[in-house]
Amino acid sequence: MAVLGTAAVEVFIPLASLIGIAFAVLQWYVVAKVPVTTHGSAAASASQGGKGGRRGSARSNEDVPEEEEVEQGDDDDGEDGIDRLAASARCAEIQQAISIGATSFLLTEYKYLAAFTSAFAAVIFVFLGSAHRFSTRPEPCAHDASRQCRPALAGAAFSAVAFLLGALTSVLSGYLGMRVATFANARAALEARRGVGDAFAVAFRSGAAMGFLLASSALLVLYAAVNLFGLYYGDDWGGLYESITGYGLGGSSVALFGRVGGGIYTKAADVGADLVGKVERNIPEDDPRNPAVIADNVGDNVGDIAGMGSDLFGSYAESSCAALFVASISSFGTEHNFTAMMYPLLVSAVGLLVCAVTTVVATDVSKVRRTDEVGPALKRQILISTVLMTGGIAAVTFLALPAQFTLFDFGNVKHVKNWHLFICVSAGLWAGLVIGYVTEYYTSNAYAPVQSVARSCRTGAATNVIFGLAVGYKSVIIPILAIACAIYAGFRLAAMYGIAVSALGMLSTIATGLAIDAYGPISDNAGGIAEMAGLPPRVRERTDALDAAGNTTAAIGKGFAIGSAALVSLALFGAYVSRAGIAAVDLLSPRVFVGLLAGAMLPYWFSAMTMRSVGSAALRMVEEVRRQFDTIPGLAEGLASPDYATCVRISTDASLREMMAPGALVMLSPLVVGTLLGVEALAGLLAGALVSGVQVAISASNSGGAWDNAKKYIEAGVSEEARALGPNGSEAHKAAVIGDTIGDPLKDTSGPSLNILIKLMAVESLVFAPFFAAHGGIIFDHL
Amino acid sequence: MAVLGTAAVEVFIPLASLIGIAFAVLQWYVVAKVPVTTHGSAAASASQGGKGGRRGSARSNEDVPEEEEVEQGDDDDGEDGIDRLAASARCAEIQQAISIGATSFLLTEYKYLAAFTSAFAAVIFVFLGSAHRFSTRPEPCAHDASRQCRPALAGAAFSAVAFLLGALTSVLSGYLGMRVATFANARAALEARRGVGDAFAVAFRSGAAMGFLLASSALLVLYAAVNLFGLYYGDDWGGLYESITGYGLGGSSVALFGRVGGGIYTKAADVGADLVGKVERNIPEDDPRNPAVIADNVGDNVGDIAGMGSDLFGSYAESSCAALFVASISSFGTEHNFTAMMYPLLVSAVGLLVCAVTTVVATDVSKVRRTDEVGPALKRQILISTVLMTGGIAAVTFLALPAQFTLFDFGNVKHVKNWHLFICVSAGLWAGLVIGYVTEYYTSNAYAPVQSVARSCRTGAATNVIFGLAVGYKSVIIPILAIACAIYAGFRLAAMYGIAVSALGMLSTIATGLAIDAYGPISDNAGGIAEMAGLPPRVRERTDALDAAGNTTAAIGKGFAIGSAALVSLALFGAYVSRAGIAAVDLLSPRVFVGLLAGAMLPYWFSAMTMRSVGSAALRMVEEVRRQFDTIPGLAEGLASPDYATCVRISTDASLREMMAPGALVMLSPLVVGTLLGVEALAGLLAGALVSGVQVAISASNSGGAWDNAKKYIEAGVSEEARALGPNGSEAHKAAVIGDTIGDPLKDTSGPSLNILIKLMAVESLVFAPFFAAHGGIIFDHL
Repeated sequence: MAVLGTAAVEVFIPLASLIGIAFAVLQWYVVAKVPVTTHGSAAASASQGGKGGRRGSARSNEDVPEEEEVEQGDDDDGEDGIDRLAASARCAEIQQAISIGATSFLLTEYKYLAAFTSAFAAVIFVFLGSAHRFSTRPEPCAHDASRQCRPALAGAAFSAVAFLLGALTSVLSGYLGMRVATFANARAALEARRGVGDAFAVAFRSGAAMGFLLASSALLVLYAAVNLFGLYYGDDWGGLYESITGYGLGGSSVALFGRVGGGIYTKAADVGADLVGKVERNIPEDDPRNPAVIADNVGDNVGDIAGMGSDLFGSYAESSCAALFVASISSFGTEHNFTAMMYPLLVSAVGLLVCAVTTVVATDVSKVRRTDEVGPALKRQILISTVLMTGGIAAVTFLALPAQFTLFDFGNVKHVKNWHLFICVSAGLWAGLVIGYVTEYYTSNAYAPVQSVARSCRTGAATNVIFGLAVGYKSVIIPILAIACAIYAGFRLAAMYGIAVSALGMLSTIATGLAIDAYGPISDNAGGIAEMAGLPPRVRERTDALDAAGNTTAAIGKGFAIGSAALVSLALFGAYVSRAGIAAVDLLSPRVFVGLLAGAMLPYWFSAMTMRSVGSAALRMVEEVRRQFDTIPGLAEGLASPDYATCVRISTDASLREMMAPGALVMLSPLVVGTLLGVEALAGLLAGALVSGVQVAISASNSGGAWDNAKKYIEAGVSEEARALGPNGSEAHKAAVIGDTIGDPLKDTSGPSLNILIKLMAVESLVFAPFFAAHGGIIFDHL
Repeated sequence: MAVLGTAAVEVFIPLASLIGIAFAVLQWYVVAKVPVTTHGSAAASASQGGKGGRRGSARSNEDVPEEEEVEQGDDDDGEDGIDRLAASARCAEIQQAISIGATSFLLTEYKYLAAFTSAFAAVIFVFLGSAHRFSTRPEPCAHDASRQCRPALAGAAFSAVAFLLGALTSVLSGYLGMRVATFANARAALEARRGVGDAFAVAFRSGAAMGFLLASSALLVLYAAVNLFGLYYGDDWGGLYESITGYGLGGSSVALFGRVGGGIYTKAADVGADLVGKVERNIPEDDPRNPAVIADNVGDNVGDIAGMGSDLFGSYAESSCAALFVASISSFGTEHNFTAMMYPLLVSAVGLLVCAVTTVVATDVSKVRRTDEVGPALKRQILISTVLMTGGIAAVTFLALPAQFTLFDFGNVKHVKNWHLFICVSAGLWAGLVIGYVTEYYTSNAYAPVQSVARSCRTGAATNVIFGLAVGYKSVIIPILAIACAIYAGFRLAAMYGIAVSALGMLSTIATGLAIDAYGPISDNAGGIAEMAGLPPRVRERTDALDAAGNTTAAIGKGFAIGSAALVSLALFGAYVSRAGIAAVDLLSPRVFVGLLAGAMLPYWFSAMTMRSVGSAALRMVEEVRRQFDTIPGLAEGLASPDYATCVRISTDASLREMMAPGALVMLSPLVVGTLLGVEALAGLLAGALVSGVQVAISASNSGGAWDNAKKYIEAGVSEEARALGPNGSEAHKAAVIGDTIGDPLKDTSGPSLNILIKLMAVESLVFAPFFAAHGGIIFDHL
């Protein structure tokens, strides 16, 4: 048996979660020290006078060496106290407008989701209950017919409860992330007056607050659910962990609507604002005269923050559930080795501690002081967390797992050694690193691909789009090979359990991943607020530098999300096949192949819907913005205020309405195929959607990232070539803006939603597998 | 036994081929009656005076009722004899320039291909020979160990010969098609002076000449090869049809380079010409002042005509080979039922006769007289040929096949009735019709999708691209479901043989398909020649109307090519799995799944390469065109002639250089994966490339078609909405031009090449299967 005892596990997992939450609160507390004041309290704050007051007492700046002159101090030296006060007040106002818009959108969205999740919980209960005719008698266990297990009806009820729990945690993750981000954005803008390092610290700490909050609560709730459900299930671990999979389904369902709804929201506003503002009216990005500008900033928070938070929570929940489910039917489950069963959760718990250390490196050990240090600092975060985590995985593996154990791999017995699992988890972790770095290469304007995209703008928008698409396609190659290696290692050494823990390995540094990912939209918002509040141009330049690095980290984050989604889906696919009792998913079966072909088509159908939605919503936004410029006298000259609220409402309405159809496509496809065409066709469908969706998602995200940064490359004019392409408003720059606008829905709506599509269909199939196995295939059975 | 005897088959197949060839020659003869004269002979022709001389004696116009006034007669009534003569001479000159450019490109390309095919034939011989250590002794038959079959070395040699034969026929198909097209283009332009109906007749007859020539010679050569190889193989039908598969590989290899090289050629010239001409210099399409204009027209002939001809020849050859190979190991083969063995060829032979009847409907029974009759006439061609062919399939099936027979489906015995095969073949045929009509819906400007794309141009190029991408994605849904139905029917009723004959069903009307497909680029060329020769604007309007219908038929043709490629690849995949001795292609095997994932990535890698190639080549073309406008005095004013030859050379060099890497990717992937990772990983790779590639190909073709026709919709101004978006040069029109330019490489380079990728990898795997089965998997065997 393993070194670590049951009691130690029972203490360690909740403790690590609580440490993570405490760390998040600490980060938030430091950020909160930056005063953002409305008129009343601003006066009090201002009375402390000058820099000292704003610096706050919680931060010791003694050990900060002198910054380089070029990045030093305030540019608004000319401002007097009143100006500073006014700027702070303006920032507070804008922040409040963004926060209100985002909160109102999310609350409306959650109202819809409450209706949906209640209904779907009922569907789960009815479908799973009906698989065994709502029998309340104990039944022979699924994987050991000699023993009696809990009745199927209990499984149906607990699955529904787990589903609701997952949905609730996902909502919480998204909402808290949004609150943290809308709390931090103005603070980052104000800190940018002091220097790029201070702004970076605020944005990054806020991201970390969100990351740790989410990762910790996800772990804590899952752990609590396992223990609470265990009170009823007792020794029936098969039933326990089968019903726990509902947690993953709940998390991913909410994530789907969050990603799609938020994605449509943010891009309708962004595209609409750009089309009229930048292209027609020739006013800068985030100009307060643009009526859609608040909606655009709200969108960053509901799409990139809340949506992405829910998304990664879903990945995490699903991979944990998949690993637990597979483990429950291995020797861990049959021998009731609790420590080994909890191995997936232990890996995540250690990940929290590793990420905390990693975060401290960025915030306290090796601080960012210059613009060009931002990107490397973020990249270093990924590297440090990966290296440290490799040690963490080794520790957990050898402490928690027996030296050798048995897995049941589709009827075959597979003997696995504990160091095999170390390789599986590490393969996932390092594949994540490779994906992150490759994504950076293809989307950062420091490297050749984005520069060649920028260069192609010389001959106009058409060549820009052609080169951008080509870069996106090309960026698929290495990530896919990295995922393939992780899959081969996991599959070969520990079958589906290996895949599941490989996914967990990639997600073990999720707190750091989320921190650098959330950092992007926060910086973006900070830039918007700086522009709108009329802070000096130098402030905007600094937030732009943060934002450019944020674009790349956003692309990296999406790469992680997609890579982990691929692994998770495969693990869920394996669990589904096992639960549905399919002997072999043979491509030479017509059902499987037809399913595979149709499954590979679904990402295209889904993308068509979401891209069209963004397009239509953006057109409505364009009309409203044009209408305001035409009808509000003095708006173009900055003499009158635009009607921000109407634009916010248009984005809200459009995204809520438009998220229905793609959401229904994803939720219904497995149910329809499983019920009508049977378990084999559904297996094919899942595999097809997985292998096709991953490619579409990666290429869409990276094409979008490349266009965005090609535009920023021209705007920043950092090299001689870039300056030759610029300045803003040149033909090349206009072509770059067109590419950026096309990339918006690709990288922020359809691309990132696709990884939820593949995960969600897989986990849904797993949850409904008992029903499909009993009653599925009513059409193919007659053909 | 069947009604049809061996002797009848021996007569019918070559006879049908010869009828097809005669029909092609007849069409060509009628087209040749239109005089296109250089100065010398023009004088002789002109001496006959006026209309009569040009009408020629071979055509009886008595039964042609009066055309509507609006389309009636010559617009160049004001021209005197000399002007007519001069116009004809100018057309002849331009035609000659195009013909010389196309011939020179193809001859250069074929020189490279000769080197490649010789080398690859040697590779085939060495690999296949080495599978059994170059043994010259008879061996136990692959599918019946109790009998002795021909030595493996003979198989290696005959496979290599069949490969060369396929390559040669493919070269011939492409070359003859190009000759016909460059012979017809000026004639169609000149006939457009008389009316749209006459121009249509010329373009369509020329397309038919090409279609029948290709389909007939493909059948004839294959039939001859079977009989000649049979002289050696005698009763060893397994060995005979295994070596015959080399024919498919040869055809597809040449098609790959033809499609890729031709695709890069045509789009480099097209994009380059448009970027400088339309966007920068604001001169119309095909303006003779544009130095790239001849290269652009050459491109249509080497890409859309020669490339597409080779492509469809490849599909036809491969599906025949796949069907023959599978049949040879069924009861047809073991019982030596020659009539039933020849069933695939009989279907194609009947198809030739059906297509001849169908063509006569368009050229003689129900002639086109008005512009708006062109599209419906082409659509009717597909419908008529499909309906007639259904009867033809029924006849062949019940005459040639025994009422019941046995197939060997991966070790299982499957009893099949002859009407089962009728359903399989018809399913493919009608799936083709569905694909054609759906493609038309998504790419014709008569319907909502293209109109919504055109409407989105109001807000600029970005929304145009977003909507166009969405239309392309959406257009995937129904074709995939149609293919899935055909696959399920074929698979369920007659296993892999069902799939193979289903593909043949879709390709049975290939002559008509090629006719309406080749018609497009010929009309396009005619328009170009009319513009360059300075024919009156009304002539150009008529050729434009023909061209717009041609854009849609081109998209339909691509739909057919992709649909048939999907079916063919699956049949080849099945044959490969059978030949490689794989028991089950189980997705739960890590090798298969890793292969599947990597295979799904290959279409992206390939597309990245080809799109980048087009982009770079277009940039070079842009520089040359700009240079000429800057350095040749009087060029912009039309006072000096541009240097067309340099542009032709740039396109030629670029396409020959750039086709190497994507070609190598496709040719080497199966060899590398099969050798290093083994037969199972290769099976996964093929399936992944198939299900992913089909989607990418369809969406790329249809997005491109939609953008092209959205632009034409605005230019033609046929509805109130379209006029509101125009006129040419408006912001909306500029946005539409950008979309069109982006679509060019998607629809004419990367999209249509992808179907060759999936077919070629499958047939290559089949040919090399004996080697992989013996020696493959040297890496995975150690992991």
